[in-house]
Amino acid sequence: MTRNPDSEPETRKPTRTGMRLIVPLQGIVQGRGGLLLGSLIPCALVYFFQVYLKRDRSSNPPSPSTSAVNLPGLPRSSSRANLRVHVSARASSIAKPNDSPYYIGLDRVREDPYDEMNNPNGILQLGLSENRLTLDLIEEWLSKNLSGSMLAEGGDDLNIRGIATYQPSDGLMELKVAMAGFMTEVMGSTVSFNPSSVVLTSGATPALEILSFCLADQGNAFLVPTPYYPGFDRDMRWRTGVELIPVHCRSCDDFTLSIKALDQAFNQARKRGQKVRGVLISNPSNPVGNLLSRDMLYDLLDFARERNIHIISDEIFAGSTHGNEEFVSMAEILDSEDSDRDRVHIIYGLSKDFSLPGFRVGVIYSFNENVLAASRKLTRFASVSTPTQRLVVSMLSDTQFTREYMKTNRERIKTMHDLFVEGLRELGIESAKSSAGLYCFVDMSRLISPYNEKGELELWDKLLNISKINVTPGSACHCIEPGWFRCCYTTLNEKEIPLVIKRIRKVVETCKRSG
Amino acid sequence: MTRNPDSEPETRKPTRTGMRLIVPLQGIVQGRGGLLLGSLIPCALVYFFQVYLKRDRSSNPPSPSTSAVNLPGLPRSSSRANLRVHVSARASSIAKPNDSPYYIGLDRVREDPYDEMNNPNGILQLGLSENRLTLDLIEEWLSKNLSGSMLAEGGDDLNIRGIATYQPSDGLMELKVAMAGFMTEVMGSTVSFNPSSVVLTSGATPALEILSFCLADQGNAFLVPTPYYPGFDRDMRWRTGVELIPVHCRSCDDFTLSIKALDQAFNQARKRGQKVRGVLISNPSNPVGNLLSRDMLYDLLDFARERNIHIISDEIFAGSTHGNEEFVSMAEILDSEDSDRDRVHIIYGLSKDFSLPGFRVGVIYSFNENVLAASRKLTRFASVSTPTQRLVVSMLSDTQFTREYMKTNRERIKTMHDLFVEGLRELGIESAKSSAGLYCFVDMSRLISPYNEKGELELWDKLLNISKINVTPGSACHCIEPGWFRCCYTTLNEKEIPLVIKRIRKVVETCKRSG
Repeated sequence: MTRNPDSEPETRKPTRTGMRLIVPLQGIVQGRGGLLLGSLIPCALVYFFQVYLKRDRSSNPPSPSTSAVNLPGLPRSSSRANLRVHVSARASSIAKPNDSPYYIGLDRVREDPYDEMNNPNGILQLGLSENRLTLDLIEEWLSKNLSGSMLAEGGDDLNIRGIATYQPSDGLMELKVAMAGFMTEVMGSTVSFNPSSVVLTSGATPALEILSFCLADQGNAFLVPTPYYPGFDRDMRWRTGVELIPVHCRSCDDFTLSIKALDQAFNQARKRGQKVRGVLISNPSNPVGNLLSRDMLYDLLDFARERNIHIISDEIFAGSTHGNEEFVSMAEILDSEDSDRDRVHIIYGLSKDFSLPGFRVGVIYSFNENVLAASRKLTRFASVSTPTQRLVVSMLSDTQFTREYMKTNRERIKTMHDLFVEGLRELGIESAKSSAGLYCFVDMSRLISPYNEKGELELWDKLLNISKINVTPGSACHCIEPGWFRCCYTTLNEKEIPLVIKRIRKVVETCKRSG
Repeated sequence: MTRNPDSEPETRKPTRTGMRLIVPLQGIVQGRGGLLLGSLIPCALVYFFQVYLKRDRSSNPPSPSTSAVNLPGLPRSSSRANLRVHVSARASSIAKPNDSPYYIGLDRVREDPYDEMNNPNGILQLGLSENRLTLDLIEEWLSKNLSGSMLAEGGDDLNIRGIATYQPSDGLMELKVAMAGFMTEVMGSTVSFNPSSVVLTSGATPALEILSFCLADQGNAFLVPTPYYPGFDRDMRWRTGVELIPVHCRSCDDFTLSIKALDQAFNQARKRGQKVRGVLISNPSNPVGNLLSRDMLYDLLDFARERNIHIISDEIFAGSTHGNEEFVSMAEILDSEDSDRDRVHIIYGLSKDFSLPGFRVGVIYSFNENVLAASRKLTRFASVSTPTQRLVVSMLSDTQFTREYMKTNRERIKTMHDLFVEGLRELGIESAKSSAGLYCFVDMSRLISPYNEKGELELWDKLLNISKINVTPGSACHCIEPGWFRCCYTTLNEKEIPLVIKRIRKVVETCKRSG
């Protein structure tokens, strides 16, 4: 956990005042400072110490030991009524305002969202990987099937016991079966997923956190190829005390993972005395949108075996492919007898491929019985609401619907991707090669000045405040090269693409003029 | 976190072997043990050390530093393919089978649940505080209003954007407004709840955990009056590293909280060097079902102010009162200008009073802005599914329904309580005075032998395996007096009460005969 002394409660202040006094005293001891400082400071110290003792005694006569622990020279008031109560260091750190442009941008859109009719000068959202392209299909299905999905099997009555009462916290078996079937449909050309290895969580976010808790102890680390999804820093670290070690991938390699770089980062961590417990990859990659090849997955598994560490493969965009490349799940790399199955854990969910982030349905798919056992118990903190589970069971069991949906979804993503990338190209802006995801990773490095993170954030600020579009700067994704931006185009509709391009053009022209 | 060496992975074994060798060596050094041991053990040690070094070199020639970290004398095989991957110490501890009779009992019912028609010799569930008495009212409401609650405002169309897309993780403002209104109706004769102080979570379980994270750091503690809800030990401690300090209440005081006992526990903790960050109470109490008086709440607030600590008041059974006593929320004790508001945090939810545990809707209600800010961000790990939120908004906004529901619910709880307590009384078994909750706390101390926890667990075992009823032994609730059991009667229907009493009679007679 990062801890910021500024966020500590008031009662801690005396310590810091003490620190400030010690610094000039060092000067005196070392012969610097004059006679005046040399006399005044010790006098002042003795005086404040007496005031402290006196105050303490008078405010707390019956129980001197209380004051020694809780009221060390309270500076604000001698009245206990004004004591500020301590909040944990971790809460103080988390409560601070967002400082990542990723979250600042999301907040800004919330305050001033674009709306064609009501707020045409509002901010266009390209910073959130949400898919609205196929909501019409979901809407149509729900309109027809909402009530039916809540009925008891074979009857016309509401399945009230199956909706309202306590259910297993890791999900209904019916949903595990339906989810495993859906994952097989989406990911598995040659692999099929086993319902009893599915653990359901209220979104992929708690799924990531639970895996972080289960695979690493406080102070341990995961290697994470960059650029990576900004949320990983919260999800994997905030409450777990686990660290993420960025392992840089470069544009000249199409941001492809390098085993050599992983190995170097592993060795460096070990030299620092830090235990690396695993590699966290996203495949398809977020924010780049490229896929890991079958060969690369074998190499990764070799590396994990060699180092005896885990692999977390976040495959939440597995069904959102739009290119000709084949998606290969980490699950496919393992044979059934493979002793390395224990080290592979897959994250999935319905927020991306199935456009249902509001439903909060995430998946841990693990081959490790201990991890499954611990994860199942930890779902008490992140259960999926049962009415939603019933709804999703019906939805995923309608395989005719899911197949048509996935096909149409891919086509629509492709159309938007091509329109958007082409629009940027006309402005002279290229994007990284991508064949999946709801976004592309755009190279605006020629537009930034200076060529560093500062220049990148200045351009991000112009895009947000002049162009009124919210995108995610590469630095928020730990991208080592400045000037890259993740742009999600699936929150837009087709006719908004020209508007976005027009708005970007405005900033491009400003940059060219000033450059 | 508790850590059990037995649950550590195989690769850690050499350390434990080492420990076993050191113990006899101590004997030698101290002059015990004979000449034989004195010669053999050092020889064996040198031999094993050589084997270790040799093995290590041969299995891992290119990178000696790897073996030093990851392969310390691997005992099982020199082949890396068989290396067991490390799971975190916390996961190992959590993954272990349940050892609390509370959870063992719940598991047993899951395997062999009573059903009048299909499994009449199955186990009757009195170990789960779930309210099924008024499910018919919920069912009736849902049948009429399910589809309507998902429609866009003022239209006939499904509100697909308002259901499927990302929403604020701490809950829809509409639900916060409806929830604050419902809480005011349930708890507030003179207090009204503010929607902007409501943080919604996927059940009260993550609400408790989030508060534990926010109010205390690892190693800090909360005081908890006993007997207390067995789940607190998981919810407050598992992932937070926070400790719970039981503060014993006694049957001769009707298990009422004692400020003196709290103060003693606080001082003892301080002497041990442990920081106490707050008091966690449940009001109405779970498992006793009594209420904290207004005077006691004032005393508790004075104590918290005096010690500068927090109060977490779990009021999840606030609407499930059935006696003549008045429930007073901790919120009512604070005046609007009170500087102590910062230290008060209330837990609520719809799992008990509203019979909707499957919906996973919990509430943190806090008066502390820092805690609210951190909690809101932490709800990313425990969001309520949006379709469920829409449903609950409709439900709670139908105040005619909620009022009638609450009234009927209280009447039905009272009927069941009176029937059950009277049935036990006819067996000569008394219960603690209670006026709320879905359970009563039953004194079977005269039936146990020996008069200690062992005797209590033997009786619990007889009840489970002979009587086939699952109840929660007081020891699982940290009750200091043996022989008490929590019995939840709201999972039963009226005609099952005589069956339960008949089944208990069987054990009572066995005990009397053997006593």
